[in-house]
Amino acid sequence: MIKAGIIGATGYAGGELVRILLGHKNTEIKWYGSRSYIDKKYYEVYQNMFELVDDVCLDDNMAQLADQVDVIFTATPQGLCASMINEEILSKVKVIDLSADFRIKDVKIYEEWYKIPHKAPEFIPEAVYGLCEINREAVKKARLVANPGCYTTCSILTCYPLVKEGIIDPDTLIIDAKSGTSGAGRGAKVDNLFCEVNENMKAYSVGNHRHTPEIEEQLGYAAGRKLTLSFTPHLVPMNRGILATAYASLTRPVTYEEVKEIYDQYYRKEKFVRVLDKDMYPQTKWVEGSNFVDINFKIDSRTNRIIMMGAIDNLVKGAAGQAVQNMNLMFGEEEDEGLRLVPLFP
Amino acid sequence: MIKAGIIGATGYAGGELVRILLGHKNTEIKWYGSRSYIDKKYYEVYQNMFELVDDVCLDDNMAQLADQVDVIFTATPQGLCASMINEEILSKVKVIDLSADFRIKDVKIYEEWYKIPHKAPEFIPEAVYGLCEINREAVKKARLVANPGCYTTCSILTCYPLVKEGIIDPDTLIIDAKSGTSGAGRGAKVDNLFCEVNENMKAYSVGNHRHTPEIEEQLGYAAGRKLTLSFTPHLVPMNRGILATAYASLTRPVTYEEVKEIYDQYYRKEKFVRVLDKDMYPQTKWVEGSNFVDINFKIDSRTNRIIMMGAIDNLVKGAAGQAVQNMNLMFGEEEDEGLRLVPLFP
Amino acid sequence: MIKAGIIGATGYAGGELVRILLGHKNTEIKWYGSRSYIDKKYYEVYQNMFELVDDVCLDDNMAQLADQVDVIFTATPQGLCASMINEEILSKVKVIDLSADFRIKDVKIYEEWYKIPHKAPEFIPEAVYGLCEINREAVKKARLVANPGCYTTCSILTCYPLVKEGIIDPDTLIIDAKSGTSGAGRGAKVDNLFCEVNENMKAYSVGNHRHTPEIEEQLGYAAGRKLTLSFTPHLVPMNRGILATAYASLTRPVTYEEVKEIYDQYYRKEKFVRVLDKDMYPQTKWVEGSNFVDINFKIDSRTNRIIMMGAIDNLVKGAAGQAVQNMNLMFGEEEDEGLRLVPLFP
Amino acid sequence: MIKAGIIGATGYAGGELVRILLGHKNTEIKWYGSRSYIDKKYYEVYQNMFELVDDVCLDDNMAQLADQVDVIFTATPQGLCASMINEEILSKVKVIDLSADFRIKDVKIYEEWYKIPHKAPEFIPEAVYGLCEINREAVKKARLVANPGCYTTCSILTCYPLVKEGIIDPDTLIIDAKSGTSGAGRGAKVDNLFCEVNENMKAYSVGNHRHTPEIEEQLGYAAGRKLTLSFTPHLVPMNRGILATAYASLTRPVTYEEVKEIYDQYYRKEKFVRVLDKDMYPQTKWVEGSNFVDINFKIDSRTNRIIMMGAIDNLVKGAAGQAVQNMNLMFGEEEDEGLRLVPLFP
Repeated sequence: MIKAGIIGATGYAGGELVRILLGHKNTEIKWYGSRSYIDKKYYEVYQNMFELVDDVCLDDNMAQLADQVDVIFTATPQGLCASMINEEILSKVKVIDLSADFRIKDVKIYEEWYKIPHKAPEFIPEAVYGLCEINREAVKKARLVANPGCYTTCSILTCYPLVKEGIIDPDTLIIDAKSGTSGAGRGAKVDNLFCEVNENMKAYSVGNHRHTPEIEEQLGYAAGRKLTLSFTPHLVPMNRGILATAYASLTRPVTYEEVKEIYDQYYRKEKFVRVLDKDMYPQTKWVEGSNFVDINFKIDSRTNRIIMMGAIDNLVKGAAGQAVQNMNLMFGEEEDEGLRLVPLFP
Repeated sequence: MIKAGIIGATGYAGGELVRILLGHKNTEIKWYGSRSYIDKKYYEVYQNMFELVDDVCLDDNMAQLADQVDVIFTATPQGLCASMINEEILSKVKVIDLSADFRIKDVKIYEEWYKIPHKAPEFIPEAVYGLCEINREAVKKARLVANPGCYTTCSILTCYPLVKEGIIDPDTLIIDAKSGTSGAGRGAKVDNLFCEVNENMKAYSVGNHRHTPEIEEQLGYAAGRKLTLSFTPHLVPMNRGILATAYASLTRPVTYEEVKEIYDQYYRKEKFVRVLDKDMYPQTKWVEGSNFVDINFKIDSRTNRIIMMGAIDNLVKGAAGQAVQNMNLMFGEEEDEGLRLVPLFP
Repeated sequence: MIKAGIIGATGYAGGELVRILLGHKNTEIKWYGSRSYIDKKYYEVYQNMFELVDDVCLDDNMAQLADQVDVIFTATPQGLCASMINEEILSKVKVIDLSADFRIKDVKIYEEWYKIPHKAPEFIPEAVYGLCEINREAVKKARLVANPGCYTTCSILTCYPLVKEGIIDPDTLIIDAKSGTSGAGRGAKVDNLFCEVNENMKAYSVGNHRHTPEIEEQLGYAAGRKLTLSFTPHLVPMNRGILATAYASLTRPVTYEEVKEIYDQYYRKEKFVRVLDKDMYPQTKWVEGSNFVDINFKIDSRTNRIIMMGAIDNLVKGAAGQAVQNMNLMFGEEEDEGLRLVPLFP
Repeated sequence: MIKAGIIGATGYAGGELVRILLGHKNTEIKWYGSRSYIDKKYYEVYQNMFELVDDVCLDDNMAQLADQVDVIFTATPQGLCASMINEEILSKVKVIDLSADFRIKDVKIYEEWYKIPHKAPEFIPEAVYGLCEINREAVKKARLVANPGCYTTCSILTCYPLVKEGIIDPDTLIIDAKSGTSGAGRGAKVDNLFCEVNENMKAYSVGNHRHTPEIEEQLGYAAGRKLTLSFTPHLVPMNRGILATAYASLTRPVTYEEVKEIYDQYYRKEKFVRVLDKDMYPQTKWVEGSNFVDINFKIDSRTNRIIMMGAIDNLVKGAAGQAVQNMNLMFGEEEDEGLRLVPLFP
């Protein structure tokens, strides 16, 4: 039995971790960390857990936690994991960080985009970027996994094969992404009130969203060189789901079959990536509640571009589900244990 | 392995049956019946099933089906199950009917409220009303189960203990129910278009909704006599969920503790009924995707009334989940097999 | 030209006042009061007002305001208007208070339900309850109008004629009301976040909502005696709209035509009350953005009850629209000036 | 008094025309054409019009209508207007066609994208493309106006000044557009059911949406040459609103101030185009119910691109509002008569 502790258990990603781990046959949650709700019953914060979780919330104490569990998930604001982590902790437990602290290899880029100093840059080199479909073997051996961002997971998996195979010119990449509101977290802000989000749509962080350098770094590895791309996030009036629509110029004429074969080659064996049939476009609702990434593409010969589309549930494949997938790899579990979740429709 | 066939597999309740049965360890779906989509891949109708279900849709042929499966679910319009069923079929398979055909014992009441002649009244007597919490033992022995309606499941379970114990005057019962739109089915009607339902709320079928006699019959058994109540359904701009707010006059002064004790007595051992803590009111979102019924009440001494509230997911406990719960009882499975679904939030 | 000042101009009701007054041909807004946004451009708080309103937000200073305007609207939390008002102010300007401070004649009931001491009980007697359809003549002469609550406006107008005519037994009255989320205000609270409200429905303040005594007082005047009723509000995932479903026992057998005639008698000449045709039920969307109240009823002879239904836009007829209607009466304007708003659909 | 007739009065755009024309002081609607609802009261189709419109629906007879009115609006499927129009009609009345029949000058392109033969190509040359901000003078003299599409209005106005001034390379233009569901019309289709759209988001018609050639033609005039661009529409779970996010490479380094000055130059005097302040991004909710287009941009020096954003209400500026704006110009009315609509929030 894997003993798990969650720091930040009362945010939306933390809540989703609880939901998923409750269905994992070899894991037991031993610690529901939530500084804001210490001593409160977890089910009073998340009423869906009534009669399912009887624990109270505990402090966010990573050192103490390290003595009691096998794996720590940090579903906390940027900077918190880096401020708590140390060699002693890492010698005792595995850490899966859902924040951005260890996602970016160049600490200067991190500090520039996140506007905070990095408190533990010494652990950046060993941290493994936990996009299982790409870094599976490294994840298996990691002590510290940087769980990818929601927009980034969707964007990278959608574009990766075509960048890697040189089918598209990476400098022409434009990713227009749309997200449900749970991505904005559970903080009480006017901008996220029902009446402000409902019946509304907007772009935000145009030209400076923090997931941009993360996507650029990972797709840069695929391209074999640095690249710069446009990424624009939008807020959509729905709870869950990210849809990424990515545009790029083709480097050479290609047929539907060629491109489909490339995608299949990369993802045929992947349990969580579904390359859809021709003309079936990804829709966020069709992956809701599951760890799937649905992908498809359309060649537009008029403009010599290809439009790649991907959809995920931002709280599952974009956060908690991927974290559990990483945990499974790190502990030798079946990769889809706890993750055989059928999408909920409607 | 229980072999299951679904007639009406492409409606919303049918789709939910598929979702749930895919997670049931001892069941295999052998027949996806859907007259409108014959020969079409099931995943083309429900894209969430891509790579999960590879079958094509078949005709709604109950006789043929009876030779191939152990249990038939009919998730079809009123009248269809009654028009197909016969002794030969029932001698071969168990039937769980999600329509109203066998829910009401008095065929005249059925015909009056449903405005269609009943084609198989001879099977009404043996049909068991499949509200497991109330008729568990009878369900276990049944060949034919009438799976309760969504509004009725929620309404009955919410009021049952207080009617049975004589705490409330059943003639004062008023049930004001609110439902998500999936309850209206997947038929293409202007009234159910996004733009007509979104940002809107209305009552409908006021004074003549077909679930009324079903609630009256079942609560009548609890009261030990016939009763007449008011039931008003409302359409709410959400996909799933039913909330029932029930009002009744108290027959005698009671304390919170007394009433709580009554509810606990009836439901303490029930896996799917959660009587909430004091002042935690049922919310549909907290049961979404699960088979739970969340219940609570408030005594209003000013008016000498009690307000009872219940919430379910109309497609799970209100349809497919309850059908699987019935199947489990009928086949000696653990009652919650396939139904250990944690509510999805947000 | 009527010069108007708004205290609390940046709440949802305040914003709606601005929207409506911008279309009023004889009114000019001279003061956008908002303590939280002093010196900020109003359009930075409500971007819809870009290029329409160029003013900055000012302090909530009623005394200063009284020298500059003809009418003050207070769209502020309970207690604020009462804490600021005095004879000098009332001798200079008319005040329309959108809070509850002057709605209830018995100060003890106010203090009991609102849990705050009343700071200006001496003005309660002269305050006119601004439900124009009922108190039109008194409103015309008032210095101080207590603008009715949103739930109360809808509930009272829906039930008033039948209570007044003795058709229903007022002690059997049960009002089950459903409201869009703007009724909860623009405060940053977790409970009102998009992800908490969307795809969700709940009852709240069961048995103790503050609008209860207001409805009881006004319907009590109609009944000619004190009455006690049940009122339960619910939160619905939509921005605007209130639907009230009211149940009561009939005091004698009545026909549809009789009841329709009673409603018509009371409301035939009312511009803002629409008694719908038979079997057309009120829907919140059909009144959105307008000052209409849509009403209908259904006689249920099975239970000897009548179900009355009413729908309003909570921010218009339930708040700002009614306030402007009151202003029109107080200043001798046409009652519907600025209020000839056609409902927005879809 | 302008006498107006509407063919297709019961679609969403037709309904919006009615709403707007009811507030136009010099217009009277004489004909509510709707083949599907002949002889039915208009308010039975659109309940918001109860007590506002008492007319019944009439047939879609353009010839007969031409004798009774001054202007005909056709809010009908592609092909219908072209099949009815003739010289006699045009000699009697002005026609504003909300369909695409006369938007595209090259009839071959029309037939290729719309897959239907054009029945009246002889009127294409004289038809004026009714984007008032660009073709104002021509509209004033027109007999036949082709009212622009919703996506196109938003896309063209957002990009026009920068294309015209040569600031961006038109061949790099990518427009990612998001629309509320009313754009899909009121037809009863499974894809537009509440449960299919709600909590969902998807791209559709990728690479082949019919608004593409319309945008290309109009921006081509601005560029002074033919151009090809990428246009991808998405369906968003909201009733109204279009948001266009457009990407293009800069032809030379520019500052924020330079670009702002260009936009202001084009739109400063335009009543319906609002170029927002720096860092205020367009949001669909802030223009809801109004004829405004909100526009802004962000220079991304990292990628040498500019991101242009525009928001409209698809039923107003994207359909009925623009049609009335065209009518005002054609009849010498004030351009904003009937269109001084303040956006509804929330």
